[in-house]
Amino acid sequence: MLQHLFTKLENYYDEMVEIRRYLHQHPELSFQEVKTPNYIKDYYLNLGIEVRDKVGGNGVVAKIYGGKPGKTIALRADFDALPINDEKDVPYKSTIPGVMHACGHDGHTATLLVLAKVLHEMREELEGNYIMIHQHAEEYAPGGAVTMIEDGCLEGVDAIFGTHLWASEPTGKIQYRKGPIMAAADRFEIEIQGQGGHGAQPHKTKDSIVTASQLVMNLQQIVSRRVNPVDSAVVTVGSFVADNAFNVIADKAKLIGTVRTFNEDVREFIEKEIERIVQGTCLAANSTFEYEYHKGYPAVVNHAEETDFLVQCATNIPDVTVVEETEPQMGGEDFAYYLQHVKGTFFFTGARPENVPVAYPHHHPKFDIDEKSLLVAAKTLGSAALEYQKK
Amino acid sequence: MLQHLFTKLENYYDEMVEIRRYLHQHPELSFQEVKTPNYIKDYYLNLGIEVRDKVGGNGVVAKIYGGKPGKTIALRADFDALPINDEKDVPYKSTIPGVMHACGHDGHTATLLVLAKVLHEMREELEGNYIMIHQHAEEYAPGGAVTMIEDGCLEGVDAIFGTHLWASEPTGKIQYRKGPIMAAADRFEIEIQGQGGHGAQPHKTKDSIVTASQLVMNLQQIVSRRVNPVDSAVVTVGSFVADNAFNVIADKAKLIGTVRTFNEDVREFIEKEIERIVQGTCLAANSTFEYEYHKGYPAVVNHAEETDFLVQCATNIPDVTVVEETEPQMGGEDFAYYLQHVKGTFFFTGARPENVPVAYPHHHPKFDIDEKSLLVAAKTLGSAALEYQKK
Amino acid sequence: MLQHLFTKLENYYDEMVEIRRYLHQHPELSFQEVKTPNYIKDYYLNLGIEVRDKVGGNGVVAKIYGGKPGKTIALRADFDALPINDEKDVPYKSTIPGVMHACGHDGHTATLLVLAKVLHEMREELEGNYIMIHQHAEEYAPGGAVTMIEDGCLEGVDAIFGTHLWASEPTGKIQYRKGPIMAAADRFEIEIQGQGGHGAQPHKTKDSIVTASQLVMNLQQIVSRRVNPVDSAVVTVGSFVADNAFNVIADKAKLIGTVRTFNEDVREFIEKEIERIVQGTCLAANSTFEYEYHKGYPAVVNHAEETDFLVQCATNIPDVTVVEETEPQMGGEDFAYYLQHVKGTFFFTGARPENVPVAYPHHHPKFDIDEKSLLVAAKTLGSAALEYQKK
Amino acid sequence: MLQHLFTKLENYYDEMVEIRRYLHQHPELSFQEVKTPNYIKDYYLNLGIEVRDKVGGNGVVAKIYGGKPGKTIALRADFDALPINDEKDVPYKSTIPGVMHACGHDGHTATLLVLAKVLHEMREELEGNYIMIHQHAEEYAPGGAVTMIEDGCLEGVDAIFGTHLWASEPTGKIQYRKGPIMAAADRFEIEIQGQGGHGAQPHKTKDSIVTASQLVMNLQQIVSRRVNPVDSAVVTVGSFVADNAFNVIADKAKLIGTVRTFNEDVREFIEKEIERIVQGTCLAANSTFEYEYHKGYPAVVNHAEETDFLVQCATNIPDVTVVEETEPQMGGEDFAYYLQHVKGTFFFTGARPENVPVAYPHHHPKFDIDEKSLLVAAKTLGSAALEYQKK
Repeated sequence: MLQHLFTKLENYYDEMVEIRRYLHQHPELSFQEVKTPNYIKDYYLNLGIEVRDKVGGNGVVAKIYGGKPGKTIALRADFDALPINDEKDVPYKSTIPGVMHACGHDGHTATLLVLAKVLHEMREELEGNYIMIHQHAEEYAPGGAVTMIEDGCLEGVDAIFGTHLWASEPTGKIQYRKGPIMAAADRFEIEIQGQGGHGAQPHKTKDSIVTASQLVMNLQQIVSRRVNPVDSAVVTVGSFVADNAFNVIADKAKLIGTVRTFNEDVREFIEKEIERIVQGTCLAANSTFEYEYHKGYPAVVNHAEETDFLVQCATNIPDVTVVEETEPQMGGEDFAYYLQHVKGTFFFTGARPENVPVAYPHHHPKFDIDEKSLLVAAKTLGSAALEYQKK
Repeated sequence: MLQHLFTKLENYYDEMVEIRRYLHQHPELSFQEVKTPNYIKDYYLNLGIEVRDKVGGNGVVAKIYGGKPGKTIALRADFDALPINDEKDVPYKSTIPGVMHACGHDGHTATLLVLAKVLHEMREELEGNYIMIHQHAEEYAPGGAVTMIEDGCLEGVDAIFGTHLWASEPTGKIQYRKGPIMAAADRFEIEIQGQGGHGAQPHKTKDSIVTASQLVMNLQQIVSRRVNPVDSAVVTVGSFVADNAFNVIADKAKLIGTVRTFNEDVREFIEKEIERIVQGTCLAANSTFEYEYHKGYPAVVNHAEETDFLVQCATNIPDVTVVEETEPQMGGEDFAYYLQHVKGTFFFTGARPENVPVAYPHHHPKFDIDEKSLLVAAKTLGSAALEYQKK
Repeated sequence: MLQHLFTKLENYYDEMVEIRRYLHQHPELSFQEVKTPNYIKDYYLNLGIEVRDKVGGNGVVAKIYGGKPGKTIALRADFDALPINDEKDVPYKSTIPGVMHACGHDGHTATLLVLAKVLHEMREELEGNYIMIHQHAEEYAPGGAVTMIEDGCLEGVDAIFGTHLWASEPTGKIQYRKGPIMAAADRFEIEIQGQGGHGAQPHKTKDSIVTASQLVMNLQQIVSRRVNPVDSAVVTVGSFVADNAFNVIADKAKLIGTVRTFNEDVREFIEKEIERIVQGTCLAANSTFEYEYHKGYPAVVNHAEETDFLVQCATNIPDVTVVEETEPQMGGEDFAYYLQHVKGTFFFTGARPENVPVAYPHHHPKFDIDEKSLLVAAKTLGSAALEYQKK
Repeated sequence: MLQHLFTKLENYYDEMVEIRRYLHQHPELSFQEVKTPNYIKDYYLNLGIEVRDKVGGNGVVAKIYGGKPGKTIALRADFDALPINDEKDVPYKSTIPGVMHACGHDGHTATLLVLAKVLHEMREELEGNYIMIHQHAEEYAPGGAVTMIEDGCLEGVDAIFGTHLWASEPTGKIQYRKGPIMAAADRFEIEIQGQGGHGAQPHKTKDSIVTASQLVMNLQQIVSRRVNPVDSAVVTVGSFVADNAFNVIADKAKLIGTVRTFNEDVREFIEKEIERIVQGTCLAANSTFEYEYHKGYPAVVNHAEETDFLVQCATNIPDVTVVEETEPQMGGEDFAYYLQHVKGTFFFTGARPENVPVAYPHHHPKFDIDEKSLLVAAKTLGSAALEYQKK
């Protein structure tokens, strides 16, 4: 039956690519997804598959009923894009300025749609039921998972599997990890309130750009000096905006950033150390500030048994040439929430483009994937879904 | 005759305020002035005064012919506004979000319009001719002065006078200085090109926000360590923009700023030191950069004889309670160019608001002036214009 | 026989404390040890134990021959002190200004001497032979281990065991780890060469203190931004010296520091990144530099089988209340070299002082240990030595 | 008579050089002068000139009585050296490691001694009396001037003149300035108290080197952003010491520096801003500090009439080729105190070495002077002393 699945997927490979490229050209930002969920819904409607949209917001959930009794397996793909300008020179480049599928969610969606089509075609011979969770808003906390779960997407589900296309690894590689595989991902905002004025009269102002620059430098010490070197942590300032005329000293400067940790104590510590450093830096600058720390997704903690099971499945797929343990990744994922409710595992599917001098990292303006990885992802998710019936 | 002038100006004080407030509510950015020059032109047309618009761009020049032969005196007022959001709570607050008369040019214009009206009414008894130069784009290099001069606004002019309302000094004070009174004002732009990526994977990126923050800190040393302490200099970064999602490490960061100097050697030195510091900072960060340095207005250098003359005029005006020498100001002014062609002087007219706890500095979102200063300015410019006929 | 060993050690506990306190009062710096090795040698001579001094420098090696054939087991204790001023208020405070046993090597030595005395007393009933390695210069690379090994201290040795008293953990706890337990510990020196001059004329100088301060700040980015967050690394500047009159701008500034890593690639990367940052910082400052990077001890990599064995031994000692795996420690240890030649393991013996509000960290001017930990260390090393005969 | 004076000085030029070189080889630190005042005293005793030593500490005062009645003129030379290591390669290099005449006080002393010898030889024909003030401890506040004045060195004095050999200007140039010619020179000390520990465990410490480095960077903003650009100010950190083993994180770091200002308000402001910045920086670092600010010499404010007089004298000396106004100098000088008691002026005597590629600045380890400047200084001081009798 697996062989049947694989052959069908291979036959639909061109469609997978076509869907992925269509989505790539029409990216939508988190929580602003309209056309993408409609596209997904229509795909299922055209196939006659049961589908529900507006699940927990912009989510879409489809259900395929196998011909025989069995377990209910959920598979999840996210479909939102990023506020990045596509700088690739390819025919399927984003048509939306400043918005881009720079993290592979287009591939996730194409994979899941075609896998669903195949499962639907095979439904008579299948045991159990299959829930296709198309999640919106993975890139932006609070994310879409929590509300989709609240809206029932995991009802009756026995196990869930999800994957991320991973551009740093070659196609054919599957990476797994028991326990924490992705980090807690928090967001902070700091607004420095100095005193504006004429660019030629610094002594009559409190220069918020200088204060904020000093703050960025000082924040480096949290990771370099204050967190235990054997604990992993990231403090990134992703946005620094003090946008004035060249000859106006900035009244305000705004920093927005992210903190990544695996350990809850370190997470709490960093939240407080940022505040301490902002306080001191502003005291020295005779300026004031607002500081907000928003806890984002918790760490993705894979279930041990389901991870072992997934390794077994992957090992048996001819296209999968390497199955290896990965180091924990500092990125966050709201797949974390599904795993707080049902058993399952989240894994990486290698997707490094071939014949390019360099594989741009995720979230880079020139990010791209090897589309052959979609087939590997579909086969691995499909194997897991079908084999789990025998567990 | 001066007394006549003063009385007429006093009678039109309410109109002056009304004009100033209208302009305050309808500010326009440098080089984007449309309604303001039309307003000025219409004012002159309604009075039957000869007026030419679109002078050297958006400038407007009016001419009043005295009934008797004499010298031709130019008076200049600028009329552009700044990209600052008006945060005052007053009825005449700016109606344009993000644009504001935060430097008093509205007052300059109102002063000159009403002074022109009075001179027009008195024209039969006057010697000489009077050129009213309403200049656009003072706030943004290359400024409006150069092209207005090229377009003939100084033709036949014997002397020029101009003033700046000065919110740090009380109404009734006139400040003068022979030689350099305002600084050379240059503009620089630096774009740091790092390498973007996911906010959780700093080691795969070159964080341009950290690099640019470090650069801002390093630039402080130019003034603190490298310029002779007895020379005056300012290096201001007025804009720092690296605007990304919170979880994306910034590919690029852009700094824009201004340099102020009185001494040409120091000016050249700073241009080179900025480059040296950018080079070194980017080398340390394994990043690249683009650096542009645009020389702006030269220093405003007042003519000695005309400055002495102006002091004499001011001393004889009852509303003027203090006439004092000012320190050189670090601000730039394209009035500098007029003084390269004809004799004249540029002075400050105190305009500190009364009954407010603090006078906000020029270019501050809450900047305001004491409107009674408009009368002082009008009388001083008017005196200079009329008295200069006797020189 | 173990019970016999434990009872004897308990009976000699007071002597252990006495020796430790004597050594604590008479600390000697690495490679400058004279009185300490003589003290050790005399101790053995007085007991009639075979001893060799000046082994590989200032090292001392004693040998105890068991009455029955068996394996040869080495036990190692280091005996050098640190250039820290003792700020404790205790009767056994260091008598040497600026030199202090702030890392517990006094305790290591006392433990090994008394354990040797007991083994010597029990020699008739013992199998195998016992090598007591008293190592000089553990605190300062290149350390004493390499030359002591070259001078034959491991000849005929079957296995080696060593411990470090560990003030952060309570007495009664033994901590172990298979594989890397302590980091590679390197040393770097950076001399910034600016241009000196009068403190009032910064523009005629290149201020090396400002340049070096900026460098310290910039170096923080290596760990915070450039090393993979899941890799552990430390870059510490331990010494910053630019010692001038207050009114002289510093010609030179010297930084000395340490780098800690577990991964050889990260080690190489940091060596190069420091250089890149020094280059860039000096380019920006128009200054020059000298940079030296000295590789110190490699990581201490414990043998798996001997570590399991040690855990077994420790578990059977009544005084040992907790046996637990430790995280890898960022400190370096030249015990690393012994493990490159013979099997063995290095472990931590909890030694947190009781009844003190806080346990000062190792290398702190107020560092101290709980002396009861000496008995735990002696029993654990003794057990390992005797039990290993049965393996 | 002036010609007579000049000829005699020329004849003794070799002795002047010899004295200067002797003193250069035997420098003594401020307040530690023993041999130098003895040398000066003996010189006068050998000539039979009235001399008093231990004046206000280590000062020496000699008096020459002219044969005719007249005014009493004081001339002052300082004789202390600096804690700088002489790095010149000359036969007369300092013989005292770490101590050096790096500011020309050796030349001042040689000039005054030989001038005194000549005046003594000419005493019969001279009007008035001549006080030779050989002052100790000019380089180190509180300086020697205050106590020498308290001890009577200005008793009966009508006017005082002093000069500084000035290595940046060529021999033959005399520089003067009415009003402030040298700055107020203050000293500050900051001790950062972090928490020491092992270099591999930054998270258990508070790294005082990082905190102090950040402080040095932050202090740059005082001059670059907070002081009015048209006011002159210098904030120099001259010494940064945190001297530890490379693998020990520094418990404490000590900064010592100087502040130079001409304006008392700016002086007060900077004292407070340093404190604000230290407070904020330590708050951010969770560390504590001690901050001391010691006001040093006030500004040297030359009397207008005596300055005009000195210019007149200098202009008439054939060796003086240029007499020009100098900018105010940021260096401090306790000559300031003499001018608070009697009329007078302080001027600069050009002393740039010839035939060297570069003139090292004062306080540089390779500082040197053109010895021919001693003759210029002697003639100018001598002229002023003799001509002032005619005023």
